Amino acid sequence: MTNITRAMVTGLTGFIGSNLAKALIEAGVEVHALVRRKSISSSLGGNLAKIHEYDGSFESVLNAFMGGRPDVVFHLASNFIAEHEAKDIGELIESNVLFGTQLLEASVKTGTAKFINTGSSWQHFGTEDYTSANLYAATKTAFEGILSYYAEAKRIKAFSLIIFDTYGVDDTRRKLIPLLRSAARSQEALAMSPGEQQLDLVYIDDVISAFLHAADLLDEHTSGHMSYALSSGRPVSIRELVATINKIVEVPLSVTWGGRPYRAREVMQPWSRGVKLPGWNSKTNLEDGLKKVFNS
Amino acid sequence: MTNITRAMVTGLTGFIGSNLAKALIEAGVEVHALVRRKSISSSLGGNLAKIHEYDGSFESVLNAFMGGRPDVVFHLASNFIAEHEAKDIGELIESNVLFGTQLLEASVKTGTAKFINTGSSWQHFGTEDYTSANLYAATKTAFEGILSYYAEAKRIKAFSLIIFDTYGVDDTRRKLIPLLRSAARSQEALAMSPGEQQLDLVYIDDVISAFLHAADLLDEHTSGHMSYALSSGRPVSIRELVATINKIVEVPLSVTWGGRPYRAREVMQPWSRGVKLPGWNSKTNLEDGLKKVFNS
Repeated sequence: MTNITRAMVTGLTGFIGSNLAKALIEAGVEVHALVRRKSISSSLGGNLAKIHEYDGSFESVLNAFMGGRPDVVFHLASNFIAEHEAKDIGELIESNVLFGTQLLEASVKTGTAKFINTGSSWQHFGTEDYTSANLYAATKTAFEGILSYYAEAKRIKAFSLIIFDTYGVDDTRRKLIPLLRSAARSQEALAMSPGEQQLDLVYIDDVISAFLHAADLLDEHTSGHMSYALSSGRPVSIRELVATINKIVEVPLSVTWGGRPYRAREVMQPWSRGVKLPGWNSKTNLEDGLKKVFNS
Repeated sequence: MTNITRAMVTGLTGFIGSNLAKALIEAGVEVHALVRRKSISSSLGGNLAKIHEYDGSFESVLNAFMGGRPDVVFHLASNFIAEHEAKDIGELIESNVLFGTQLLEASVKTGTAKFINTGSSWQHFGTEDYTSANLYAATKTAFEGILSYYAEAKRIKAFSLIIFDTYGVDDTRRKLIPLLRSAARSQEALAMSPGEQQLDLVYIDDVISAFLHAADLLDEHTSGHMSYALSSGRPVSIRELVATINKIVEVPLSVTWGGRPYRAREVMQPWSRGVKLPGWNSKTNLEDGLKKVFNS
Protein backbone atom coordinates (compact mmCIF):
# COMPACT_ATOMS: atom_id res chain seq x y z
CA MET A 1 0.00 0.00 0.00
CA THR A 2 2.90 2.37 0.65
CA ASN A 3 6.69 2.31 0.31
CA ILE A 4 7.23 4.10 3.61
CA THR A 5 8.94 2.24 6.45
CA ARG A 6 9.30 4.95 9.08
CA ALA A 7 7.66 8.40 9.07
CA MET A 8 8.12 11.53 11.15
CA VAL A 9 4.86 13.43 11.62
CA THR A 10 4.43 16.92 13.01
CA GLY A 11 1.04 18.32 13.94
CA LEU A 12 0.00 14.95 15.37
CA THR A 13 -2.55 16.55 17.68
CA GLY A 14 -4.29 18.30 14.80
CA PHE A 15 -7.18 17.00 12.72
CA ILE A 16 -5.18 16.07 9.63
CA GLY A 17 -2.09 14.94 11.55
CA SER A 18 -4.00 12.55 13.79
CA ASN A 19 -5.85 11.03 10.85
CA LEU A 20 -2.63 10.70 8.88
CA ALA A 21 -0.82 8.99 11.77
CA LYS A 22 -3.70 6.56 12.13
CA ALA A 23 -3.66 5.72 8.41
CA LEU A 24 0.11 5.29 8.41
CA ILE A 25 0.00 2.95 11.40
CA GLU A 26 -2.78 0.93 9.77
CA ALA A 27 -0.56 0.62 6.68
CA GLY A 28 2.23 -0.85 8.84
CA VAL A 29 4.40 2.27 8.99
CA GLU A 30 6.40 3.02 12.14
CA VAL A 31 5.20 6.50 13.04
CA HIS A 32 7.28 8.97 15.02
CA ALA A 33 5.91 12.31 16.09
CA LEU A 34 7.48 15.52 17.30
CA VAL A 35 5.14 17.07 19.83
CA ARG A 36 5.43 20.09 22.12
CA ARG A 37 5.29 19.21 25.81
CA LYS A 38 2.08 21.13 26.40
CA SER A 39 0.38 18.98 23.74
CA ILE A 40 1.80 15.68 24.96
CA SER A 41 -0.42 15.27 27.98
CA SER A 42 -3.59 16.68 26.52
CA SER A 43 -4.62 14.87 23.42
CA LEU A 44 -2.59 11.81 22.62
CA GLY A 45 -4.71 9.19 24.35
CA GLY A 46 -4.80 6.00 22.30
CA ASN A 47 -2.36 7.24 19.69
CA LEU A 48 0.16 4.57 18.74
CA ALA A 49 2.81 6.91 17.33
CA LYS A 50 6.17 7.07 19.11
CA ILE A 51 6.25 10.49 20.72
CA HIS A 52 9.37 12.68 20.81
CA GLU A 53 9.28 15.92 22.72
CA TYR A 54 9.99 19.15 20.85
CA ASP A 55 11.21 21.83 23.23
CA GLY A 56 11.92 24.49 20.61
CA SER A 57 15.59 23.56 20.20
CA PHE A 58 17.30 22.04 17.20
CA GLU A 59 18.77 19.37 19.47
CA SER A 60 15.33 18.07 20.38
CA VAL A 61 14.49 17.80 16.68
CA LEU A 62 17.76 16.07 15.87
CA ASN A 63 17.27 13.61 18.74
CA ALA A 64 13.88 12.64 17.38
CA PHE A 65 15.34 12.04 13.92
CA MET A 66 18.26 10.03 15.34
CA GLY A 67 15.75 7.92 17.25
CA GLY A 68 13.24 7.57 14.46
CA ARG A 69 15.42 7.43 11.35
CA PRO A 70 12.39 8.29 9.20
CA ASP A 71 12.46 7.99 5.41
CA VAL A 72 9.88 10.74 5.10
CA VAL A 73 8.74 13.78 7.06
CA PHE A 74 5.10 14.84 7.02
CA HIS A 75 5.19 18.40 8.28
CA LEU A 76 1.64 19.31 9.28
CA ALA A 77 2.24 21.39 12.40
CA SER A 78 1.30 25.00 12.03
CA ASN A 79 0.12 27.87 14.09
CA PHE A 80 -3.09 29.22 12.56
CA ILE A 81 -4.26 32.74 13.33
CA ALA A 82 -6.81 34.25 10.95
CA GLU A 83 -6.17 37.88 11.89
CA HIS A 84 -2.97 38.36 13.82
CA GLU A 85 -2.06 40.91 16.45
CA ALA A 86 1.44 42.23 17.07
CA LYS A 87 1.94 39.85 19.98
CA ASP A 88 1.43 36.82 17.69
CA ILE A 89 4.31 37.59 15.31
CA GLY A 90 7.07 35.83 17.23
CA GLU A 91 5.07 32.65 17.68
CA LEU A 92 3.89 32.60 14.04
CA ILE A 93 7.46 32.80 12.79
CA GLU A 94 8.75 30.28 15.31
CA SER A 95 6.05 27.72 14.56
CA ASN A 96 5.70 28.25 10.84
CA VAL A 97 9.25 29.12 9.76
CA LEU A 98 11.82 28.14 12.39
CA PHE A 99 10.40 24.71 13.29
CA GLY A 100 10.23 23.65 9.64
CA THR A 101 13.80 24.82 9.06
CA GLN A 102 14.95 22.75 12.03
CA LEU A 103 13.17 19.73 10.53
CA LEU A 104 14.95 20.28 7.21
CA GLU A 105 18.34 20.63 8.86
CA ALA A 106 17.76 17.44 10.87
CA SER A 107 16.65 15.70 7.67
CA VAL A 108 19.93 16.62 6.00
CA LYS A 109 21.96 15.50 9.02
CA THR A 110 20.25 12.11 9.25
CA GLY A 111 19.80 11.35 5.56
CA THR A 112 16.02 11.69 5.52
CA ALA A 113 15.49 12.35 1.85
CA LYS A 114 11.74 13.03 1.54
CA PHE A 115 9.84 15.98 2.96
CA ILE A 116 6.15 16.72 2.59
CA ASN A 117 5.15 20.18 3.67
CA THR A 118 1.63 21.48 4.15
CA GLY A 119 0.68 24.66 2.35
CA SER A 120 -2.56 26.58 2.52
CA SER A 121 -4.84 27.97 -0.15
CA TRP A 122 -4.77 31.18 1.92
CA GLN A 123 -1.30 31.71 0.45
CA HIS A 124 -3.03 32.53 -2.81
CA PHE A 125 -5.48 35.26 -2.03
CA GLY A 126 -8.23 35.88 -4.55
CA THR A 127 -7.07 35.11 -8.04
CA GLU A 128 -3.48 36.18 -7.36
CA ASP A 129 -0.81 33.55 -7.27
CA TYR A 130 1.57 35.16 -4.81
CA THR A 131 -0.45 37.16 -2.30
CA SER A 132 -1.25 35.86 1.14
CA ALA A 133 -4.63 36.39 2.75
CA ASN A 134 -3.10 36.86 6.19
CA LEU A 135 0.18 36.74 8.10
CA TYR A 136 -0.32 33.03 8.86
CA ALA A 137 -0.31 32.32 5.13
CA ALA A 138 2.60 34.72 4.58
CA THR A 139 4.71 32.78 7.10
CA LYS A 140 3.91 29.60 5.16
CA THR A 141 5.08 31.26 1.95
CA ALA A 142 8.17 32.44 3.81
CA PHE A 143 8.94 28.86 4.83
CA GLU A 144 8.65 27.69 1.22
CA GLY A 145 11.51 30.07 0.37
CA ILE A 146 13.64 28.12 2.81
CA LEU A 147 12.27 24.73 1.71
CA SER A 148 13.25 25.50 -1.90
CA TYR A 149 16.80 26.17 -0.77
CA TYR A 150 17.06 22.80 1.02
CA ALA A 151 15.50 21.07 -1.97
CA GLU A 152 18.02 22.59 -4.41
CA ALA A 153 21.15 22.80 -2.31
CA LYS A 154 20.76 19.88 0.07
CA ARG A 155 18.96 17.46 -2.24
CA ILE A 156 15.88 17.09 -0.05
CA LYS A 157 12.99 15.81 -2.19
CA ALA A 158 10.22 18.20 -1.29
CA PHE A 159 6.55 18.68 -2.08
CA SER A 160 4.17 21.17 -0.56
CA LEU A 161 0.57 20.01 -0.56
CA ILE A 162 -1.71 23.01 -0.60
CA ILE A 163 -4.70 22.37 1.58
CA PHE A 164 -8.04 24.02 0.94
CA ASP A 165 -10.99 23.42 3.26
CA THR A 166 -10.98 20.02 4.90
CA TYR A 167 -13.72 18.30 6.86
CA GLY A 168 -14.53 14.93 8.38
CA VAL A 169 -15.78 12.97 11.34
CA ASP A 170 -14.51 13.95 14.81
CA ASP A 171 -13.26 17.34 13.68
CA THR A 172 -12.98 19.56 16.75
CA ARG A 173 -11.49 22.58 14.96
CA ARG A 174 -13.44 25.81 15.21
CA LYS A 175 -14.35 25.65 11.57
CA LEU A 176 -17.60 26.09 9.72
CA ILE A 177 -18.74 22.48 9.30
CA PRO A 178 -18.26 21.47 12.96
CA LEU A 179 -20.08 24.68 13.87
CA LEU A 180 -22.99 23.88 11.55
CA ARG A 181 -23.12 20.34 12.87
CA SER A 182 -23.43 21.49 16.44
CA ALA A 183 -26.04 24.08 15.42
CA ALA A 184 -27.97 21.29 13.69
CA ARG A 185 -27.98 19.32 16.95
CA SER A 186 -28.85 22.23 19.22
CA GLN A 187 -31.19 23.78 16.64
CA GLU A 188 -29.85 27.21 17.56
CA ALA A 189 -30.13 30.06 15.05
CA LEU A 190 -26.91 31.20 13.37
CA ALA A 191 -25.94 34.73 12.32
CA MET A 192 -23.67 34.32 9.31
CA SER A 193 -21.96 36.50 6.71
CA PRO A 194 -23.86 37.01 3.42
CA GLY A 195 -22.53 33.54 2.51
CA GLU A 196 -21.52 34.08 -1.09
CA GLN A 197 -17.87 33.16 -0.44
CA GLN A 198 -16.88 29.82 -1.92
CA LEU A 199 -15.22 26.89 -0.19
CA ASP A 200 -13.22 24.13 -1.83
CA LEU A 201 -14.11 21.26 0.50
CA VAL A 202 -12.11 18.02 0.55
CA TYR A 203 -13.08 15.09 2.75
CA ILE A 204 -10.41 13.98 5.23
CA ASP A 205 -9.98 10.50 3.71
CA ASP A 206 -9.09 12.10 0.38
CA VAL A 207 -6.61 14.44 2.06
CA ILE A 208 -4.91 11.49 3.74
CA SER A 209 -4.73 9.50 0.53
CA ALA A 210 -3.05 12.53 -1.09
CA PHE A 211 -0.33 12.60 1.58
CA LEU A 212 0.34 8.86 1.22
CA HIS A 213 0.33 9.08 -2.56
CA ALA A 214 2.68 12.11 -2.49
CA ALA A 215 5.22 10.22 -0.37
CA ASP A 216 5.35 7.49 -3.00
CA LEU A 217 5.57 10.00 -5.87
CA LEU A 218 8.55 11.61 -4.16
CA ASP A 219 10.56 8.43 -4.80
CA GLU A 220 10.63 9.31 -8.48
CA HIS A 221 11.07 13.06 -7.93
CA THR A 222 14.56 14.17 -8.90
CA SER A 223 15.13 17.60 -7.42
CA GLY A 224 13.62 20.91 -6.41
CA HIS A 225 10.52 21.83 -4.46
CA MET A 226 7.12 21.32 -6.08
CA SER A 227 3.75 22.62 -4.90
CA TYR A 228 0.54 20.72 -5.55
CA ALA A 229 -3.02 21.78 -4.83
CA LEU A 230 -5.36 19.40 -3.00
CA SER A 231 -8.43 20.93 -4.56
CA SER A 232 -11.79 19.20 -4.95
CA GLY A 233 -12.19 21.04 -8.24
CA ARG A 234 -15.79 21.73 -7.20
CA PRO A 235 -16.03 24.86 -5.00
CA VAL A 236 -19.40 25.63 -3.41
CA SER A 237 -20.69 28.78 -1.75
CA ILE A 238 -21.55 28.67 1.93
CA ARG A 239 -25.19 29.07 0.93
CA GLU A 240 -24.92 25.97 -1.28
CA LEU A 241 -23.20 24.11 1.54
CA VAL A 242 -26.03 24.89 3.95
CA ALA A 243 -28.58 23.87 1.30
CA THR A 244 -26.80 20.50 0.93
CA ILE A 245 -26.76 20.01 4.69
CA ASN A 246 -30.47 20.79 4.80
CA LYS A 247 -31.08 17.84 2.48
CA ILE A 248 -29.49 15.56 5.08
CA VAL A 249 -30.62 16.80 8.45
CA GLU A 250 -34.15 16.38 9.78
CA VAL A 251 -34.67 19.97 10.90
CA PRO A 252 -33.19 22.57 8.50
CA LEU A 253 -30.55 24.93 9.85
CA SER A 254 -31.80 28.36 10.84
CA VAL A 255 -29.36 30.84 9.32
CA THR A 256 -29.56 34.63 9.16
CA TRP A 257 -27.56 35.52 6.05
CA GLY A 258 -25.76 38.83 6.48
CA GLY A 259 -26.15 38.69 10.26
CA ARG A 260 -22.42 39.37 10.52
CA PRO A 261 -20.04 41.04 8.05
CA TYR A 262 -17.42 39.38 5.89
CA ARG A 263 -13.99 39.10 7.47
CA ALA A 264 -11.25 41.58 6.46
CA ARG A 265 -9.67 40.11 3.30
CA GLU A 266 -12.26 37.33 3.20
CA VAL A 267 -11.37 34.73 0.57
CA MET A 268 -14.42 34.93 -1.74
CA GLN A 269 -13.18 32.48 -4.34
CA PRO A 270 -10.65 29.79 -3.60
CA TRP A 271 -7.47 29.79 -5.63
CA SER A 272 -8.01 27.68 -8.73
CA ARG A 273 -4.72 27.93 -10.57
CA GLY A 274 -2.74 25.39 -8.59
CA VAL A 275 -1.25 22.28 -10.19
CA LYS A 276 -3.13 19.21 -9.04
CA LEU A 277 -1.16 16.38 -7.46
CA PRO A 278 -0.61 13.92 -10.34
CA GLY A 279 -2.56 10.68 -9.97
CA TRP A 280 -4.76 11.94 -7.16
CA ASN A 281 -8.39 13.02 -7.08
CA SER A 282 -10.84 14.06 -4.44
CA LYS A 283 -13.24 11.10 -4.59
CA THR A 284 -15.82 11.75 -1.90
CA ASN A 285 -18.64 13.95 -3.14
CA LEU A 286 -19.87 16.64 -0.81
CA GLU A 287 -23.21 15.08 0.08
CA ASP A 288 -21.63 11.72 0.93
CA GLY A 289 -18.95 13.39 3.04
CA LEU A 290 -21.48 15.52 4.88
CA LYS A 291 -23.64 12.45 5.58
CA LYS A 292 -20.73 10.83 7.38
CA VAL A 293 -20.16 13.95 9.45
CA PHE A 294 -23.79 14.73 10.29
CA ASN A 295 -24.76 11.13 11.01
CA SER A 296 -21.72 10.40 13.20
CA MET B 1 17.81 66.54 -2.58
CA THR B 2 15.33 64.17 -0.91
CA ASN B 3 11.70 64.23 0.22
CA ILE B 4 12.45 62.36 3.42
CA THR B 5 11.94 64.13 6.75
CA ARG B 6 12.59 61.34 9.24
CA ALA B 7 14.08 57.92 8.51
CA MET B 8 14.44 54.72 10.52
CA VAL B 9 17.62 52.83 9.65
CA THR B 10 18.53 49.30 10.69
CA GLY B 11 22.01 47.90 10.21
CA LEU B 12 23.56 51.24 11.23
CA THR B 13 26.78 49.59 12.35
CA GLY B 14 27.28 47.92 8.97
CA PHE B 15 29.17 49.31 6.00
CA ILE B 16 26.15 50.30 3.92
CA GLY B 17 24.03 51.36 6.91
CA SER B 18 26.66 53.70 8.33
CA ASN B 19 27.25 55.31 4.94
CA LEU B 20 23.53 55.68 4.35
CA ALA B 21 22.96 57.29 7.76
CA LYS B 22 25.77 59.73 7.06
CA ALA B 23 24.33 60.67 3.67
CA LEU B 24 20.85 61.09 5.11
CA ILE B 25 22.10 63.34 7.89
CA GLU B 26 24.05 65.42 5.38
CA ALA B 27 20.83 65.80 3.41
CA GLY B 28 19.10 67.19 6.49
CA VAL B 29 17.11 64.05 7.36
CA GLU B 30 16.45 63.20 11.01
CA VAL B 31 17.88 59.71 11.30
CA HIS B 32 16.70 57.19 13.85
CA ALA B 33 18.35 53.82 14.22
CA LEU B 34 17.35 50.57 15.86
CA VAL B 35 20.47 48.96 17.26
CA ARG B 36 21.04 45.89 19.39
CA ARG B 37 22.59 46.65 22.78
CA LYS B 38 25.77 44.74 22.04
CA SER B 39 26.35 46.97 19.00
CA ILE B 40 25.50 50.23 20.78
CA SER B 41 28.70 50.54 22.75
CA SER B 42 31.07 49.19 20.15
CA SER B 43 30.86 51.09 16.93
CA LEU B 44 28.68 54.16 17.07
CA GLY B 45 31.32 56.76 17.92
CA GLY B 46 30.65 59.98 16.08
CA ASN B 47 27.39 58.82 14.55
CA LEU B 48 24.73 61.51 14.70
CA ALA B 49 21.72 59.20 14.35
CA LYS B 50 19.30 58.97 17.25
CA ILE B 51 19.82 55.51 18.69
CA HIS B 52 16.95 53.30 19.90
CA GLU B 53 17.75 50.00 21.54
CA TYR B 54 16.36 46.84 19.98
CA ASP B 55 16.13 44.08 22.58
CA GLY B 56 14.45 41.48 20.34
CA SER B 57 10.92 42.40 21.40
CA PHE B 58 8.20 43.99 19.32
CA GLU B 59 7.72 46.58 22.06
CA SER B 60 11.25 47.88 21.62
CA VAL B 61 10.62 48.27 17.88
CA LEU B 62 7.30 50.00 18.44
CA ASN B 63 8.86 52.39 20.97
CA ALA B 64 11.48 53.40 18.45
CA PHE B 65 8.81 54.10 15.83
CA MET B 66 6.67 56.04 18.30
CA GLY B 67 9.70 58.11 19.18
CA GLY B 68 10.99 58.55 15.64
CA ARG B 69 7.78 58.77 13.59
CA PRO B 70 9.78 57.98 10.43
CA ASP B 71 8.25 58.37 6.97
CA VAL B 72 10.51 55.68 5.61
CA VAL B 73 12.29 52.59 6.91
CA PHE B 74 15.64 51.57 5.46
CA HIS B 75 16.02 47.96 6.56
CA LEU B 76 19.67 47.04 6.10
CA ALA B 77 20.29 44.87 9.15
CA SER B 78 21.00 41.28 8.35
CA ASN B 79 22.88 38.36 9.71
CA PHE B 80 25.24 37.07 7.05
CA ILE B 81 26.60 33.53 7.22
CA ALA B 82 28.04 32.09 4.01
CA GLU B 83 27.80 28.44 5.00
CA HIS B 84 25.56 27.88 8.01
CA GLU B 85 25.72 25.25 10.72
CA ALA B 86 22.70 23.90 12.60
CA LYS B 87 23.35 26.20 15.56
CA ASP B 88 22.97 29.29 13.30
CA ILE B 89 19.40 28.58 12.19
CA GLY B 90 17.60 30.27 15.06
CA GLU B 91 19.63 33.45 14.79
CA LEU B 92 19.35 33.61 11.00
CA ILE B 93 15.57 33.43 11.19
CA GLU B 94 15.35 35.86 14.08
CA SER B 95 17.57 38.46 12.43
CA ASN B 96 16.47 38.05 8.84
CA VAL B 97 12.78 37.17 9.19
CA LEU B 98 11.41 38.07 12.62
CA PHE B 99 13.08 41.48 13.00
CA GLY B 100 11.85 42.65 9.60
CA THR B 101 8.32 41.47 10.39
CA GLN B 102 8.39 43.45 13.62
CA LEU B 103 9.49 46.52 11.64
CA LEU B 104 6.58 46.06 9.24
CA GLU B 105 4.07 45.64 12.05
CA ALA B 106 5.39 48.77 13.77
CA SER B 107 5.21 50.60 10.43
CA VAL B 108 1.53 49.70 10.13
CA LYS B 109 0.81 50.73 13.71
CA THR B 110 2.49 54.14 13.38
CA GLY B 111 1.50 55.01 9.83
CA THR B 112 4.99 54.69 8.32
CA ALA B 113 4.07 54.12 4.71
CA LYS B 114 7.42 53.46 2.97
CA PHE B 115 9.71 50.50 3.48
CA ILE B 116 12.98 49.79 1.70
CA ASN B 117 14.30 46.30 2.23
CA THR B 118 17.72 45.01 1.30
CA GLY B 119 17.90 41.88 -0.82
CA SER B 120 20.96 39.99 -1.93
CA SER B 121 22.06 38.69 -5.32
CA TRP B 122 22.75 35.42 -3.47
CA GLN B 123 18.97 34.91 -3.52
CA HIS B 124 19.35 34.17 -7.23
CA PHE B 125 21.89 31.42 -7.52
CA GLY B 126 23.49 30.92 -10.90
CA THR B 127 21.09 31.78 -13.66
CA GLU B 128 18.04 30.65 -11.71
CA ASP B 129 15.59 33.25 -10.54
CA TYR B 130 14.31 31.55 -7.42
CA THR B 131 17.12 29.52 -5.91
CA SER B 132 19.17 30.74 -2.99
CA ALA B 133 22.91 30.18 -2.80
CA ASN B 134 22.80 29.61 0.96
CA LEU B 135 20.49 29.65 3.97
CA TYR B 136 21.26 33.33 4.59
CA ALA B 137 19.84 34.16 1.16
CA ALA B 138 16.92 31.77 1.70
CA THR B 139 15.94 33.62 4.88
CA LYS B 140 15.96 36.87 2.88
CA THR B 141 13.65 35.28 0.32
CA ALA B 142 11.49 34.04 3.19
CA PHE B 143 11.19 37.58 4.51
CA GLU B 144 10.09 38.85 1.10
CA GLY B 145 7.10 36.48 1.33
CA ILE B 146 6.07 38.35 4.46
CA LEU B 147 6.93 41.77 3.02
CA SER B 148 4.66 41.10 0.03
CA TYR B 149 1.80 40.38 2.40
CA TYR B 150 2.26 43.68 4.25
CA ALA B 151 2.58 45.50 0.93
CA GLU B 152 -0.68 44.04 -0.40
CA ALA B 153 -2.79 43.77 2.73
CA LYS B 154 -1.51 46.61 4.87
CA ARG B 155 -0.70 49.10 2.10
CA ILE B 156 2.97 49.43 2.96
CA LYS B 157 4.83 50.79 -0.08
CA ALA B 158 7.73 48.40 -0.38
CA PHE B 159 10.82 47.95 -2.51
CA SER B 160 13.58 45.42 -2.08
CA LEU B 161 16.93 46.63 -3.43
CA ILE B 162 19.00 43.63 -4.39
CA ILE B 163 22.61 44.25 -3.49
CA PHE B 164 25.45 42.63 -5.41
CA ASP B 165 29.07 43.17 -4.37
CA THR B 166 29.70 46.53 -2.76
CA TYR B 167 32.99 48.21 -1.93
CA GLY B 168 34.33 51.54 -0.77
CA VAL B 169 36.63 53.42 1.56
CA ASP B 170 36.77 52.34 5.23
CA ASP B 171 35.15 48.98 4.56
CA THR B 172 36.06 46.67 7.43
CA ARG B 173 33.99 43.70 6.28
CA ARG B 174 35.88 40.47 5.69
CA LYS B 175 35.34 40.74 1.96
CA LEU B 176 37.64 40.37 -0.99
CA ILE B 177 38.55 43.99 -1.70
CA PRO B 178 39.53 44.91 1.88
CA LEU B 179 41.53 41.68 1.94
CA LEU B 180 43.31 42.56 -1.30
CA ARG B 181 43.98 46.07 -0.02
CA SER B 182 45.63 44.81 3.13
CA ALA B 183 47.62 42.27 1.10
CA ALA B 184 48.76 45.11 -1.15
CA ARG B 185 50.05 46.98 1.92
CA SER B 186 51.71 44.01 3.58
CA GLN B 187 52.90 42.55 0.27
CA GLU B 188 51.97 39.10 1.52
CA ALA B 189 51.24 36.32 -0.99
CA LEU B 190 47.61 35.20 -1.35
CA ALA B 191 46.29 31.71 -2.07
CA MET B 192 43.05 32.19 -3.96
CA SER B 193 40.47 30.10 -5.79
CA PRO B 194 40.97 29.69 -9.55
CA GLY B 195 39.41 33.17 -9.78
CA GLU B 196 37.08 32.73 -12.74
CA GLN B 197 33.98 33.61 -10.70
CA GLN B 198 32.52 36.97 -11.59
CA LEU B 199 31.65 39.83 -9.27
CA ASP B 200 29.20 42.62 -9.94
CA LEU B 201 30.91 45.44 -8.04
CA VAL B 202 29.11 48.66 -7.16
CA TYR B 203 30.85 51.53 -5.41
CA ILE B 204 29.32 52.56 -2.07
CA ASP B 205 28.35 56.08 -3.22
CA ASP B 206 26.26 54.55 -6.01
CA VAL B 207 24.60 52.16 -3.57
CA ILE B 208 23.68 55.05 -1.28
CA SER B 209 22.30 57.12 -4.13
CA ALA B 210 20.11 54.13 -5.07
CA PHE B 211 18.61 53.98 -1.58
CA LEU B 212 17.87 57.72 -1.54
CA HIS B 213 16.42 57.60 -5.03
CA ALA B 214 14.28 54.57 -4.18
CA ALA B 215 12.76 56.38 -1.20
CA ASP B 216 11.64 59.18 -3.50
CA LEU B 217 10.34 56.74 -6.13
CA LEU B 218 8.21 55.07 -3.48
CA ASP B 219 6.13 58.24 -3.21
CA GLU B 220 4.66 57.46 -6.62
CA HIS B 221 4.44 53.71 -6.04
CA THR B 222 0.84 52.61 -5.64
CA SER B 223 0.87 49.14 -4.15
CA GLY B 224 2.61 45.81 -3.87
CA HIS B 225 6.22 44.85 -3.28
CA MET B 226 8.76 45.41 -6.06
CA SER B 227 12.32 44.10 -6.30
CA TYR B 228 15.06 46.05 -8.06
CA ALA B 229 18.62 45.00 -8.79
CA LEU B 230 21.48 47.35 -7.91
CA SER B 231 23.74 45.87 -10.57
CA SER B 232 26.71 47.63 -12.15
CA GLY B 233 25.83 45.91 -15.41
CA ARG B 234 29.55 45.19 -15.82
CA PRO B 235 30.58 42.01 -13.97
CA VAL B 236 34.31 41.22 -13.81
CA SER B 237 36.10 38.03 -12.86
CA ILE B 238 38.31 38.04 -9.78
CA ARG B 239 41.29 37.70 -12.11
CA GLU B 240 40.21 40.86 -13.94
CA LEU B 241 39.69 42.62 -10.63
CA VAL B 242 43.22 41.78 -9.52
CA ALA B 243 44.58 42.89 -12.90
CA THR B 244 42.81 46.26 -12.47
CA ILE B 245 44.23 46.64 -8.97
CA ASN B 246 47.70 45.88 -10.29
CA LYS B 247 47.37 48.88 -12.58
CA ILE B 248 46.91 51.09 -9.51
CA VAL B 249 49.26 49.76 -6.85
CA GLU B 250 53.02 50.15 -6.99
CA VAL B 251 53.93 46.54 -6.28
CA PRO B 252 51.62 44.03 -8.01
CA LEU B 253 49.66 41.60 -5.81
CA SER B 254 51.20 38.17 -5.47
CA VAL B 255 48.34 35.71 -6.02
CA THR B 256 48.46 31.92 -6.37
CA TRP B 257 45.39 31.14 -8.49
CA GLY B 258 43.88 27.80 -7.52
CA GLY B 259 45.68 27.83 -4.17
CA ARG B 260 42.35 27.11 -2.52
CA PRO B 261 39.18 25.49 -3.94
CA TYR B 262 35.95 27.20 -4.86
CA ARG B 263 33.38 27.41 -2.08
CA ALA B 264 30.45 24.96 -2.06
CA ARG B 265 27.78 26.49 -4.32
CA GLU B 266 30.16 29.29 -5.33
CA VAL B 267 28.34 31.94 -7.35
CA MET B 268 30.30 31.84 -10.65
CA GLN B 269 28.15 34.36 -12.50
CA PRO B 270 26.11 37.00 -10.77
CA TRP B 271 22.40 37.05 -11.44
CA SER B 272 21.73 39.24 -14.45
CA ARG B 273 17.98 39.02 -14.90
CA GLY B 274 16.91 41.49 -12.24
CA VAL B 275 14.93 44.62 -13.08
CA LYS B 276 17.12 47.70 -12.65
CA LEU B 277 15.92 50.46 -10.35
CA PRO B 278 14.34 53.00 -12.74
CA GLY B 279 16.29 56.22 -13.06
CA TRP B 280 19.41 54.91 -11.32
CA ASN B 281 22.78 53.85 -12.66
CA SER B 282 26.06 52.75 -11.18
CA LYS B 283 28.22 55.72 -12.16
CA THR B 284 31.64 55.02 -10.65
CA ASN B 285 33.75 52.88 -12.95
CA LEU B 286 35.77 50.12 -11.34
CA GLU B 287 39.21 51.68 -11.74
CA ASP B 288 38.09 55.00 -10.25
CA GLY B 289 36.39 53.26 -7.32
CA LEU B 290 39.44 51.10 -6.66
CA LYS B 291 41.72 54.13 -6.75
CA LYS B 292 39.71 55.71 -3.94
CA VAL B 293 39.95 52.51 -1.90
CA PHE B 294 43.61 51.74 -2.52
CA ASN B 295 44.81 55.31 -2.12
CA SER B 296 42.86 55.97 1.08
